[in-house]
Amino acid sequence: MKTRANIKDVARQAGVHASTVSRVLNPATRPMVSEALAQKITRIAAELGYRRNPIASGLRTRKTYTVGIVIPDLTNPVFPPIVRSAELTLDGAGYSAILADSGSQQRSEREIIDNMRARQVDGLILATAKRSDPAIDACVEQGIPFVLVNRTVSRHNVAAVINDDELGIELALAHLAQHGHRHIAYIGGPQSTSTGYVRYHAFLRGTKKLGLKIDRKLIANAKAFTEPAGAAALERLFDSGKRFTAVLTANDLLALGCYDALKERGLSCPDDLSITGFNDMPYVDRLDPPLTTLHIPQDALGVQAARLLLERIENPEAPAKQLRLEPRMIVRGSTARRQR
Amino acid sequence: MKTRANIKDVARQAGVHASTVSRVLNPATRPMVSEALAQKITRIAAELGYRRNPIASGLRTRKTYTVGIVIPDLTNPVFPPIVRSAELTLDGAGYSAILADSGSQQRSEREIIDNMRARQVDGLILATAKRSDPAIDACVEQGIPFVLVNRTVSRHNVAAVINDDELGIELALAHLAQHGHRHIAYIGGPQSTSTGYVRYHAFLRGTKKLGLKIDRKLIANAKAFTEPAGAAALERLFDSGKRFTAVLTANDLLALGCYDALKERGLSCPDDLSITGFNDMPYVDRLDPPLTTLHIPQDALGVQAARLLLERIENPEAPAKQLRLEPRMIVRGSTARRQR
Repeated sequence: MKTRANIKDVARQAGVHASTVSRVLNPATRPMVSEALAQKITRIAAELGYRRNPIASGLRTRKTYTVGIVIPDLTNPVFPPIVRSAELTLDGAGYSAILADSGSQQRSEREIIDNMRARQVDGLILATAKRSDPAIDACVEQGIPFVLVNRTVSRHNVAAVINDDELGIELALAHLAQHGHRHIAYIGGPQSTSTGYVRYHAFLRGTKKLGLKIDRKLIANAKAFTEPAGAAALERLFDSGKRFTAVLTANDLLALGCYDALKERGLSCPDDLSITGFNDMPYVDRLDPPLTTLHIPQDALGVQAARLLLERIENPEAPAKQLRLEPRMIVRGSTARRQR
Repeated sequence: MKTRANIKDVARQAGVHASTVSRVLNPATRPMVSEALAQKITRIAAELGYRRNPIASGLRTRKTYTVGIVIPDLTNPVFPPIVRSAELTLDGAGYSAILADSGSQQRSEREIIDNMRARQVDGLILATAKRSDPAIDACVEQGIPFVLVNRTVSRHNVAAVINDDELGIELALAHLAQHGHRHIAYIGGPQSTSTGYVRYHAFLRGTKKLGLKIDRKLIANAKAFTEPAGAAALERLFDSGKRFTAVLTANDLLALGCYDALKERGLSCPDDLSITGFNDMPYVDRLDPPLTTLHIPQDALGVQAARLLLERIENPEAPAKQLRLEPRMIVRGSTARRQR
């Protein structure tokens, strides 16, 4: 390796103390120095090729300036925009993101979190929460700063950025009812997740509110938020022999599974069955047919989760905030007026 | 924080020296210990709640057991499977992945790599390479272990896992020619990337080989591998007034842009124009129409890149290997026999 300028070289040339250079080059402390001086020091550091070593800084401040991001499935297109915007926001504050996907059988969420803690991450962003989640209980108990995103736990005292799932289901139900649907089936997700649980109960309450009869045989909660689980659930609904003209699903991948099951039976969407999704993941506007779904602000989920985490790292004792972002109904080609 | 068992507690209970415990709990050195003993030690460590601290280990071995992964755009669906499989493979060897997306205007590839090096990552997986890339030259010069994935540089002495881009273009051309197309347009990517450059030259050579005339007015290299750039490129081809019945594109997002430009003109695919893509990114089988494209083995790209990097970290002086994986033609609904 080449010899590089060190912090003292920069301080000497700028005519300041080394600690001022250190403060300027750490995004977290830069605002403590006047902008004019900060710019001068940054320029001199760049000219001399000096870069702050976050590991050395971390040894002094007992921080690593790393954050762990754990997601259930990176290939579910709803997550990449969340991860990207969280990572960019963290980077702006001088933090790097360690990413892990808990979707494989290779390791549990608990092992991933333990490993990240062993790496002394300063905090965690978790998109993997179960409603009752021992791994998250351990984070609470041990005082690790963390923020849940998209899904939350049943305990109230955790920081989270989630969607207004109840509103979303109400919007989808209203859309289907306005199009004349009276026999609306529901395909939900795993009841161990907040998104599975809250959306399911919102469906029960919503149908009642609309004065529609709830037929338990027209409700299927899938074991996973995946296409095969969605297809299997629609098969079960068909097998019930009950009549329905629309199916409201708790996520886009479940809706795609319905597309598959429908095609398998030689039926067509929306002529034979209207279908709604949840998430508005990238590219569902290009499907055949384009999916009617609930748009969730994926970038905002990532940005807000990162900001909330930075706040918690700064001030771990402050009360945990919960942000609830509003979904928006996007009507496309997979829903139509009731035909029969 | 609670007091946890330390390495000596585990060693005492297992009746071995602490260094043996350390060896077993580090995936990189575990094979040095007999499997029976390793299992016993792992069990005792789990019972006592002891976990290896990778940072402390790193201080002894001068390693951080972290690897940086840099990608150009996480929301391009071709990348998440690559990232996920690389991350899982690295995890299996005890390494964590620091992820960064270079797609925003916020920071350059160079800044990202500098930042990761300042964090003392043990190596880098880069999906962002330009053919001539000063950031990568710097990695070579300073002896940082790295592996390029999907794209490579023009220098020969770098480790890379890429696709056989030339074969891919030949397969797509052969498919279109077999369906009677004689006037085949081409939409390529940025010539600063190997994928843009190699695929373009493969198109020129391939058309010549098939005995077709090359019309420069039917070739448009887009400024970016994005949908808007693909749409703009097809507009330019239409504006040339030249006749063509098929367009071969250098990536799926460019092909999706062609879908948009076609719709804008009230034309239809494949009746008015056959379109092929490259990558077979997730969900293109569900588009309207389903995209004919070249499948690249995304999981294998990630796994092989991670394995190659682990080899290079182990043995930085060994000659750099290049793996070239074969794409496969997937024929779907966006191509048809020439109509006119």
